[in-house]
Amino acid sequence: MDVGGTGSRGGRLAALQSALGRNGADLLALAVSDSMRYAFGGYAPHAVERFCALLLSTAGRVLVIPTLNADQARGRLDLPLQTYQDEEGSGTALTAALTQLRLPPAPVIAVDEEMRADHLLVLQDTLPEATYRLAGAIVGPLRRVKDTEELAALRRAAATAAAGVEAVFAACKPGVSELELAAIAGNAMVSAGAEETVFAMVGAGSHGALPHHQPDGTRLRAGDTVVIDIGSRLGGYCSDITRMAIVGPQPADPEYRRVHAVVEEAWQAAWAAARPGARASEVDGAARAVIAAAGYGDLFVHRTGHGLGLSIHEAPYITATNDLVLEAGMVFSIEPGIYLPDRFGVRLEEIVYLDAEGAHVLSQLDRKSVV
Amino acid sequence: MDVGGTGSRGGRLAALQSALGRNGADLLALAVSDSMRYAFGGYAPHAVERFCALLLSTAGRVLVIPTLNADQARGRLDLPLQTYQDEEGSGTALTAALTQLRLPPAPVIAVDEEMRADHLLVLQDTLPEATYRLAGAIVGPLRRVKDTEELAALRRAAATAAAGVEAVFAACKPGVSELELAAIAGNAMVSAGAEETVFAMVGAGSHGALPHHQPDGTRLRAGDTVVIDIGSRLGGYCSDITRMAIVGPQPADPEYRRVHAVVEEAWQAAWAAARPGARASEVDGAARAVIAAAGYGDLFVHRTGHGLGLSIHEAPYITATNDLVLEAGMVFSIEPGIYLPDRFGVRLEEIVYLDAEGAHVLSQLDRKSVV
Repeated sequence: MDVGGTGSRGGRLAALQSALGRNGADLLALAVSDSMRYAFGGYAPHAVERFCALLLSTAGRVLVIPTLNADQARGRLDLPLQTYQDEEGSGTALTAALTQLRLPPAPVIAVDEEMRADHLLVLQDTLPEATYRLAGAIVGPLRRVKDTEELAALRRAAATAAAGVEAVFAACKPGVSELELAAIAGNAMVSAGAEETVFAMVGAGSHGALPHHQPDGTRLRAGDTVVIDIGSRLGGYCSDITRMAIVGPQPADPEYRRVHAVVEEAWQAAWAAARPGARASEVDGAARAVIAAAGYGDLFVHRTGHGLGLSIHEAPYITATNDLVLEAGMVFSIEPGIYLPDRFGVRLEEIVYLDAEGAHVLSQLDRKSVV
Repeated sequence: MDVGGTGSRGGRLAALQSALGRNGADLLALAVSDSMRYAFGGYAPHAVERFCALLLSTAGRVLVIPTLNADQARGRLDLPLQTYQDEEGSGTALTAALTQLRLPPAPVIAVDEEMRADHLLVLQDTLPEATYRLAGAIVGPLRRVKDTEELAALRRAAATAAAGVEAVFAACKPGVSELELAAIAGNAMVSAGAEETVFAMVGAGSHGALPHHQPDGTRLRAGDTVVIDIGSRLGGYCSDITRMAIVGPQPADPEYRRVHAVVEEAWQAAWAAARPGARASEVDGAARAVIAAAGYGDLFVHRTGHGLGLSIHEAPYITATNDLVLEAGMVFSIEPGIYLPDRFGVRLEEIVYLDAEGAHVLSQLDRKSVV
């Protein structure tokens, strides 16, 4: 945690401060969030409902933090702290911090997307003349281009997700429940070195047609096709992968094989389109065109992908309307899907990173349906 | 999930609506949060960065939800949904929902403390004339009094936390690291039936003097005293417990035994003060008086406790300034502590529930230091 140092992580606070002016903002206010973890090189205090914010202006940097969490923060961070006790509340500490930061009369404040509403209301009460925008415009351009250390962490996390999928493949038999499979995935990811399971979605049969199904006690039957979408965190960085299993001997729905082939083709098209200089919307469009041409256009009900890093979903979002130009160092999912209501769904998801040559897949796991 | 039904969970939406008027609010806006889980009897959609809000006025109820999550929500909830696709954004769906709810021109909106700032800003952009308050005034009085089903869930969760502490006790030997002990606690809680580890804090030696220490690679040495503060979730409800271990044969610091005895005495005093009709501040005061009389007043740097339920920290907060009158059915922690900087800390924490007789401890684990 060399936040005061000169390494790539050490320069992040300075980079955020210098991005303020370019974005017409006077203050960046980060909550305990993945953006704060980014700013502090992986660390954030454990404050939960207590007000805690990193405040940056061109004039300075202050962390407003409960006294309870301050000692540990002091050991890890080299910036001024404004502390407060439970009894007094955060008001005085926040006002003192804002005074040090020398804001103009009606400041523009870039506020962390993840800040809790109660904390944003504290800020708005303290600075009623301010205009509020999202911090993503400032933090996003830095967070969305990964350095080699971040890429290595993402690769390690991806390996734990692949291990989770393989454990589910091995356990996909008639009679096992979605919740049991989700637990098996989680245990396998943690056994493979992950710090935690971020989510574990298993959708059997018609549940696979619900892209964000939450697993339940439903038991697998012969002929079910199963969507397995799981993610973990390792070294602070996330993984996310989706694969398909078939509970043998054959998929019950005769259309499954064709749909799987279309999704694979859409995946390939998006992958080929994903390179520096392309727009995010072109990658989305490439996948969407394949699925539409096959007659399933209305059944691809979500975006093609999302960025991934400290957050499971972050910039760049791979959508029909995002005209962001992709750059080397960006990491995102490509995950087209087709969902036949009350029948089944197919989604295939890889995390890719871009370099000058194009998009490279982080995991090593085949995308075929495993019987 | 009998949200439309007549059971105790089914009545929650109606109870929230009828509390609006009493609180001078026109709209309750709940995010994907523990308050939404409370309102929906345990369920909340999985929406993450996508806008999703339960909106209640006296005129109606609407859930604004991404299309992606809507099918599953329909299967579980009996209320109108306003859906939107990724490409179109949430604006139209939100406006349509607000129209159905027939708000006055400059409405007072009670907003979920946990709502993300980006979602609150969407609401504020859509309703710029509104005044915003915290939803806790409306949701808190309902959430903080537990019914028998909730109490049973809390008791089951408490048993998993006790199992976690016992696993750490068994593993507390010289050479084991804080992070290893935290993982042992987490695995033991999940093995005992918990859905997940909410947190696992292990602070050895002088780290115990930091109430919110985040465990690291520090290895236990003979004579260390160890603060073990862990929590899990089971059936949606949380557990939270703190115990002390000594790495034998003796605590290195000669003052440890005395400090432990003072904290135990403070715990007993708070427990005796905790009964229906007492104020939260009196419970805090009872613990604080014991610690102050023993000469450690400045070293008890946090509140005496917090409520616990779907959230790990919720109302009622047991602080010096909270004059809330306690009621039967409330569940909260009693967790006095004394922290000697750079030496050691002692905290003892139980979750108690109140009935007409007084405070009852949820777990069965002795509070003595285990050598």
